[in-house]
Amino acid sequence: MNNFLRNGKGMLLAYDQGFEHGPSADFNDKNIDPNHILDIAVKGEFTGLVLHKGIAEKYYNGKVPLIVKLNGKTNLPRGEPLSTQICSVEQAISLGARGVGYTIYLGSAHESVMLQEFGEIQEDAHEEGLPAIAWIYPRGEAVKNDTAPEIVAYAARAGLEIGADAVKIKYTGAPDTFQWAVKAAGATKVFMSGGPKAQTDETFFSQVKGAMDAGATGLAVGRNVWQHQEPLKMASALKEIIFSGGAIQKALQLVVAQ
Amino acid sequence: MNNFLRNGKGMLLAYDQGFEHGPSADFNDKNIDPNHILDIAVKGEFTGLVLHKGIAEKYYNGKVPLIVKLNGKTNLPRGEPLSTQICSVEQAISLGARGVGYTIYLGSAHESVMLQEFGEIQEDAHEEGLPAIAWIYPRGEAVKNDTAPEIVAYAARAGLEIGADAVKIKYTGAPDTFQWAVKAAGATKVFMSGGPKAQTDETFFSQVKGAMDAGATGLAVGRNVWQHQEPLKMASALKEIIFSGGAIQKALQLVVAQ
Amino acid sequence: MNNFLRNGKGMLLAYDQGFEHGPSADFNDKNIDPNHILDIAVKGEFTGLVLHKGIAEKYYNGKVPLIVKLNGKTNLPRGEPLSTQICSVEQAISLGARGVGYTIYLGSAHESVMLQEFGEIQEDAHEEGLPAIAWIYPRGEAVKNDTAPEIVAYAARAGLEIGADAVKIKYTGAPDTFQWAVKAAGATKVFMSGGPKAQTDETFFSQVKGAMDAGATGLAVGRNVWQHQEPLKMASALKEIIFSGGAIQKALQLVVAQ
Amino acid sequence: MNNFLRNGKGMLLAYDQGFEHGPSADFNDKNIDPNHILDIAVKGEFTGLVLHKGIAEKYYNGKVPLIVKLNGKTNLPRGEPLSTQICSVEQAISLGARGVGYTIYLGSAHESVMLQEFGEIQEDAHEEGLPAIAWIYPRGEAVKNDTAPEIVAYAARAGLEIGADAVKIKYTGAPDTFQWAVKAAGATKVFMSGGPKAQTDETFFSQVKGAMDAGATGLAVGRNVWQHQEPLKMASALKEIIFSGGAIQKALQLVVAQ
Amino acid sequence: MNNFLRNGKGMLLAYDQGFEHGPSADFNDKNIDPNHILDIAVKGEFTGLVLHKGIAEKYYNGKVPLIVKLNGKTNLPRGEPLSTQICSVEQAISLGARGVGYTIYLGSAHESVMLQEFGEIQEDAHEEGLPAIAWIYPRGEAVKNDTAPEIVAYAARAGLEIGADAVKIKYTGAPDTFQWAVKAAGATKVFMSGGPKAQTDETFFSQVKGAMDAGATGLAVGRNVWQHQEPLKMASALKEIIFSGGAIQKALQLVVAQ
Repeated sequence: MNNFLRNGKGMLLAYDQGFEHGPSADFNDKNIDPNHILDIAVKGEFTGLVLHKGIAEKYYNGKVPLIVKLNGKTNLPRGEPLSTQICSVEQAISLGARGVGYTIYLGSAHESVMLQEFGEIQEDAHEEGLPAIAWIYPRGEAVKNDTAPEIVAYAARAGLEIGADAVKIKYTGAPDTFQWAVKAAGATKVFMSGGPKAQTDETFFSQVKGAMDAGATGLAVGRNVWQHQEPLKMASALKEIIFSGGAIQKALQLVVAQ
Repeated sequence: MNNFLRNGKGMLLAYDQGFEHGPSADFNDKNIDPNHILDIAVKGEFTGLVLHKGIAEKYYNGKVPLIVKLNGKTNLPRGEPLSTQICSVEQAISLGARGVGYTIYLGSAHESVMLQEFGEIQEDAHEEGLPAIAWIYPRGEAVKNDTAPEIVAYAARAGLEIGADAVKIKYTGAPDTFQWAVKAAGATKVFMSGGPKAQTDETFFSQVKGAMDAGATGLAVGRNVWQHQEPLKMASALKEIIFSGGAIQKALQLVVAQ
Repeated sequence: MNNFLRNGKGMLLAYDQGFEHGPSADFNDKNIDPNHILDIAVKGEFTGLVLHKGIAEKYYNGKVPLIVKLNGKTNLPRGEPLSTQICSVEQAISLGARGVGYTIYLGSAHESVMLQEFGEIQEDAHEEGLPAIAWIYPRGEAVKNDTAPEIVAYAARAGLEIGADAVKIKYTGAPDTFQWAVKAAGATKVFMSGGPKAQTDETFFSQVKGAMDAGATGLAVGRNVWQHQEPLKMASALKEIIFSGGAIQKALQLVVAQ
Repeated sequence: MNNFLRNGKGMLLAYDQGFEHGPSADFNDKNIDPNHILDIAVKGEFTGLVLHKGIAEKYYNGKVPLIVKLNGKTNLPRGEPLSTQICSVEQAISLGARGVGYTIYLGSAHESVMLQEFGEIQEDAHEEGLPAIAWIYPRGEAVKNDTAPEIVAYAARAGLEIGADAVKIKYTGAPDTFQWAVKAAGATKVFMSGGPKAQTDETFFSQVKGAMDAGATGLAVGRNVWQHQEPLKMASALKEIIFSGGAIQKALQLVVAQ
Repeated sequence: MNNFLRNGKGMLLAYDQGFEHGPSADFNDKNIDPNHILDIAVKGEFTGLVLHKGIAEKYYNGKVPLIVKLNGKTNLPRGEPLSTQICSVEQAISLGARGVGYTIYLGSAHESVMLQEFGEIQEDAHEEGLPAIAWIYPRGEAVKNDTAPEIVAYAARAGLEIGADAVKIKYTGAPDTFQWAVKAAGATKVFMSGGPKAQTDETFFSQVKGAMDAGATGLAVGRNVWQHQEPLKMASALKEIIFSGGAIQKALQLVVAQ
């Protein structure tokens, strides 16, 4: 994962929402444009950028280390979630990727399909010297609460067991329960999933701070940055928390700074 | 996609309806004959022709750039739509194709099968230097209205994310909503899907004009041309709108011209 | 298809019923023996013989051009029909085949499986220089009447679209409706499917005559020949209609001739 | 099949019941031991021995020609029967097999899976010069009576059509109906399936005699030999019927002989 | 299996529970750490260590012979159990494995998937000179009691039939019934599955003693060791029973020894 870390910490900009949620759910006239996001990634000094292969192929400029998400789905179909591979490790490398990502809906009736695909991807990626990063989201009828501490810890641990170099998991709501998830992940690095735009900056910063205090390696964030009125200030604030261990108040000041 | 563009715009003649809808639904004694369609494609100066492999193999004459549709289904089976691959990229090339097409029923319970197949096709096609064109039709029980603006925009965006060089999507009904879909598609070129024969020429021209004004690259049309009493005049009228940015009235005049 | 034609017409002897229907449904002590059928094929001057791989391997004598059926099923399972590949194109060639056959149950919930398998077979066969022949039978819950003109025409057209060199389809009941199916098939040659033994020879001859008059290339027949009391006379009568364009009355005379 | 015949007849010892039925259903302290069975196979002068790969690998001594069963299942799962491949033709050969076996549950909703796997196995086996033997058992909800004459004949015929060199089928209950099955099998050799231990030796001998009189090539037997108090005498008695055409009475004498 | 035996007996430390049950179900602050477990494995003189590929890759130190579990699942999804392959034999070898493990849920509606995967793994492993070890757990709606003697014996026998070099099965509750399972396994070595932490040490020791007396080769244990207050004393006690044939009382003394 060193490709995506600065002093052992990382801040990844995720931009797969156009496929996973649809453009109308998350985008406005500005952030619908991939170039706008790439710009934020560069100027915001993100340590990694997460794209599906199509956007990588047509927009990626090589300035921020690239993670290509190898699977994806829309949010249209009903039933148990299934996201299958749409890009090979080899193609990701040809697009400039220095890491690959894959989403596993743990608990889905189709869990075994995704675990098996990730198994092959992990082997391929390691043979090529790339880290394999797992987005592990417990979901499906069997999962009642996907931020319950034991469910998040399960996601983290599953990532370690299946050989993920890093996992992206949801925040549990409190540092002490998230710490257990970090512990469960062991040598697998933990990135907190940014999720939908928080109601206030303070709320979001306290989550990120909580995750970092609990031992997370970093944050994978999308909407909380590029849906923000001031994405670059938001990036500065997050860097303060993630890389400098700064306080929430300091981060808040950076957001409102002129 | 430059293989299929003239001054950056394109007009594709689609002729896969015999498989997708059956010959009795769409054809008469004349247009049931592939040679008749090929003739229209040449004389109507279309920039591309869309065929399944069987017709390509037995009729294609090399005069208009060819897109081979790599998957297909009949409209007979009930249940969630699934269209699987029946032609390889390699075979398409051997038939003279300069681009390949594939239909994805976004939102179908079988969405993942089609996304995965397209993923491999896209990789193969790009390795061979061919564009991969996605017919993206949201369909299935989960899709209530397949021309709703947010659904059409989702189709367009999915095309970009999965690496389609062009998408064929339905018209939303108005230029401003279609513009959002074009924006969502980003660097992926947008072709409006012609659909079933419009009630009047004016209706159809206003859709095409709306799509072009909204930023579409062109039109993929079948029935509105070859079911028309005057296919070549219809082609002239459409060229006026697509390539010359002409007005609807001008197009209407070309259709009735002697 | 020239391997299986004489002066542009063909008469194929089909003998896959032991697998498709079971021996007790169709056979008697005589026609249960493949050697008896091979004898009829030779003496009756058929232009092709259709066998599954097992009978081809153990009985075929090289005297009549061979089509190996590459898929098959029994009539025992309930539910939507599915017939999967049991013989490769390569194995068929090693058994002496000069053409390959495959059955597609159009409209079945498993339609896509068969379309996909045929797609690969068609590509393989053409690479090897062999024609690919599709038995296209619309069937399954979605198909109410499998001899309805528009359904038969759909079968014919699907054959053309997916690259079949010939299709075997059911008779529609009248020359004018069958003519539409032949037209739909375009450059794909149409063979009328003989089906179960007709109540009278005259009935069957009028069907064959109707199909030939409608433009069919020929007939693929089994039970109406080898369940007949006089298979060789039946063959002579059919040759009269198929190759010489003879009248039904003339054919009837040949059957009763000493 | 000559690998497994003596003067054109065969007597195969089957020992796959530990997997197919479980050890507690069929075994006692003696016959649970594969060495005991191998001993019977040698001393009883069986012409072939049928084992799954595990027992072949750990026990087979090369003394009796070996058939490795390539698929298997337990009798635990409910629903339509499905038995999939667990050993390749190549591995079977490496274990010393001179023939391969495969079970097809004809009529099962999963029939197509097994027909397809057997298709590939048959091709592989013939390329390697080995016979492919099909255990064909009609089973599943669609099959009301698996020893009905027309069902047994269907099994036999299916074996011929798919290229089996021999089929193992159940006895129909009478020589005349079994004769029809043998006829249906044509050039494919028919082995009667021994089945569960018969109530009396006489009952079993009359079945075997009936099958042989009907033209069977031999018997594949397990429980009726190794569950018998005197397996070797039982083997002698069966040899009398199978290889010498002896009468039931003579066989009965051999069983009780000191 | 000699890689994992000492004087013909074996004691394997299993640590796949973080994936199979989740970290919160089985772990505390200490045993959540793989290094802690590796330490126990070394100091406790275990003859083998069982890990999933992720932990093997990031923690394994080469000190205790390694078995990599090649499949896995979480306990989240409902329905019939299915655990599919997430690591290849080749990758396991590259991680230092000297044996591979695979879980089969015998009786599950997906039994055939796992039997087939194990079939290929077993062939691969033996080609590479590695033992293939099967965790055989009868489970699913069809299995009422997974420790019933005939069910455990079925698991053992299935292991032998499919070529497992060792099986891990549950204890039946009594030595005489477990002896039958050991007999059913024949040349396949039997390891008793430790299962959840027993209520008292005596209970657990009497199970292990019972299994060893019944002919087991050893024990695969996890929670009863590393959830114990004194894991190393527990290991000493188990070694006494397994390798020295010691009495339960002696084992109990070793646990409480200072």
